[in-house]
Amino acid sequence: MQQPMDEVLVDLGPRSYSVLVGAGLLDAVGARLAGLGFRGRCALVTSERVGALYRERVEQSLRTTGFKPVVVELPDGEEHKNLAWLAVLYEKLLDAGVERRSPVVGLGGGVIGDLVGFAGATLLRGLPVALVPTTLLAQVDAAIGGKTGVNHALGKNLIGAFHQPRLVVADVETLRTLPERELVAGLAEVVKYGAIRDAALFGLLEGRAQALLAVDEETIVPVVAACVRHKAAVVAVDEREEHGDRAVLNFGHTVGHAIEVLTDYREFLHGEAVAMGMVAAARVSHALGRCDGATVDRLAALLKRIGLPTEIPGGLSTEALSVAMLRDKKTADGRIRFVCLEGIGRTAFVDIGAQEIVQHLS
Amino acid sequence: MQQPMDEVLVDLGPRSYSVLVGAGLLDAVGARLAGLGFRGRCALVTSERVGALYRERVEQSLRTTGFKPVVVELPDGEEHKNLAWLAVLYEKLLDAGVERRSPVVGLGGGVIGDLVGFAGATLLRGLPVALVPTTLLAQVDAAIGGKTGVNHALGKNLIGAFHQPRLVVADVETLRTLPERELVAGLAEVVKYGAIRDAALFGLLEGRAQALLAVDEETIVPVVAACVRHKAAVVAVDEREEHGDRAVLNFGHTVGHAIEVLTDYREFLHGEAVAMGMVAAARVSHALGRCDGATVDRLAALLKRIGLPTEIPGGLSTEALSVAMLRDKKTADGRIRFVCLEGIGRTAFVDIGAQEIVQHLS
Repeated sequence: MQQPMDEVLVDLGPRSYSVLVGAGLLDAVGARLAGLGFRGRCALVTSERVGALYRERVEQSLRTTGFKPVVVELPDGEEHKNLAWLAVLYEKLLDAGVERRSPVVGLGGGVIGDLVGFAGATLLRGLPVALVPTTLLAQVDAAIGGKTGVNHALGKNLIGAFHQPRLVVADVETLRTLPERELVAGLAEVVKYGAIRDAALFGLLEGRAQALLAVDEETIVPVVAACVRHKAAVVAVDEREEHGDRAVLNFGHTVGHAIEVLTDYREFLHGEAVAMGMVAAARVSHALGRCDGATVDRLAALLKRIGLPTEIPGGLSTEALSVAMLRDKKTADGRIRFVCLEGIGRTAFVDIGAQEIVQHLS
Repeated sequence: MQQPMDEVLVDLGPRSYSVLVGAGLLDAVGARLAGLGFRGRCALVTSERVGALYRERVEQSLRTTGFKPVVVELPDGEEHKNLAWLAVLYEKLLDAGVERRSPVVGLGGGVIGDLVGFAGATLLRGLPVALVPTTLLAQVDAAIGGKTGVNHALGKNLIGAFHQPRLVVADVETLRTLPERELVAGLAEVVKYGAIRDAALFGLLEGRAQALLAVDEETIVPVVAACVRHKAAVVAVDEREEHGDRAVLNFGHTVGHAIEVLTDYREFLHGEAVAMGMVAAARVSHALGRCDGATVDRLAALLKRIGLPTEIPGGLSTEALSVAMLRDKKTADGRIRFVCLEGIGRTAFVDIGAQEIVQHLS
């Protein structure tokens, strides 16, 4: 049977690239990379967990297409996305003899993608990067758009750069080995695309949530591809967050990010915090007269059905949330460019203070 | 008396910026930065030596134009241009409360410019940078064109990014406190611009070398401005070293860099190594029939008159030089894109092996 496969172009002029979405694509990484004109030395960077599962297939695909891959394995976990492990990665890549035309392939979730992307942005002033995201969150979001970076003790992703990959290969089969909780959390970002840009996708999610949770390929390939298309479209008009359009992707993230900060990133996965943040944002939108209550209810119901939290934990005071939002690196002069929902599939930006946001939450 | 002042535009579309060259410009930094629409919090990063001499004037100019500068002082010396001190700089900038629109002003030589530029490229995914270069090398070369980075134990500038500054203010008065040896070394890059692009400048240098060494403002302001114009023109056609045109600036650097590596960067200043490298490159050009012997002699004579070395130390074997050239990050597949001199003011690229280069040196 023909495997479902889709190819999305991220249209950024000279920095355009393809995102392949399908089942069984790990074996195609080498051929696609060779098709871009690369050859010889390359590096395959992965995490211990993902490496144990998939590195051999990707390595094999690189070898059979003529590459000489050096494998670098980093420990799993967000706590390793920092300057110290970046230095380790630099060292290993240099030891491997990478040159300016040597592709660096990142096989793993968002941590691997962000580290590899940032190393690719900065080593030898820029190496070609290929990403092979193995989490749903990375496939629909993190691997697309060129945001790279590492965390700093004073905040997440405070150190980073824009560096577009040359190729992204999203193999949905890798989602089968993803812990259930991470799959569910990844679906929060999928719901987000539906909520902000795509009522049809939102409706499909309402009907096919169980098939997605079961990683049914016929369902999930077009859904991931739709999300990639949305992300690509937003990034294409505002590659470096200079015009503000890209900020629509922050829907649910203003409050969600504050929740993550206040719980020290320990209690919730990113998608879980975003789920609560989206419902909060919908409520603020409703309070501001931007959308009706039915929209809020529909969003909350879908998130709940998927298994995502929708209510901010009682322990977090509105005052604490407000302070955390003001500290966000996207906040300028105390004003927040808040993404309001105007209905399923439609948004509007509202300049608003943190106090005003939180007063509508209770 | 009216101070001589010149303004050069580095024409890079949306990333265009002005380079001011003149005497007494330190007091104008704040006003020019405010003129670009910046305000509020900013950081002034300098070295201990340069800070002791000039930080008060620049700080004052920032304060009187409404900025709230936080001063960060780093130790002097290339040995501090590394990831560890970059981490310190990140920390201090974050502690200072910089936001995405907060300018970071780098006051100092190439080390400060490279560190500040790279921190600006990567902190909060990009901060506006203003450079106030205080060495001749930084004024005519390092501060222009957006190359930023830090060294790695395995090589210089192996970690870096392109990040154009928003403003460059080159105050030639700061050259009066520059150690004589550094001023002389900086003149090597000035001679380079004459050799590769500007026979008239070369002729002026032959006649006015003593005035330059005395930092005579009437002489040095137009000379620095001419160099900035050349650098800006080259950068404008090949901002990120993608088309190869920018590589013309590597004249003298292939051999010069090898000399620096083989002497562990301890024996020669960069400009001194480049001076030897330029004479070597001219000799190779002559051996390849690209230029006449008089061109080689004229170049060597000017460099000598300025006080620069022109002969590669006897202790460095051609074999060692060859190996060092092959390890250069710009070398691809063992071939070197060598900048040949075709006469004073004219160059040509030649693809050549390292062995072939060194065989023409003895």
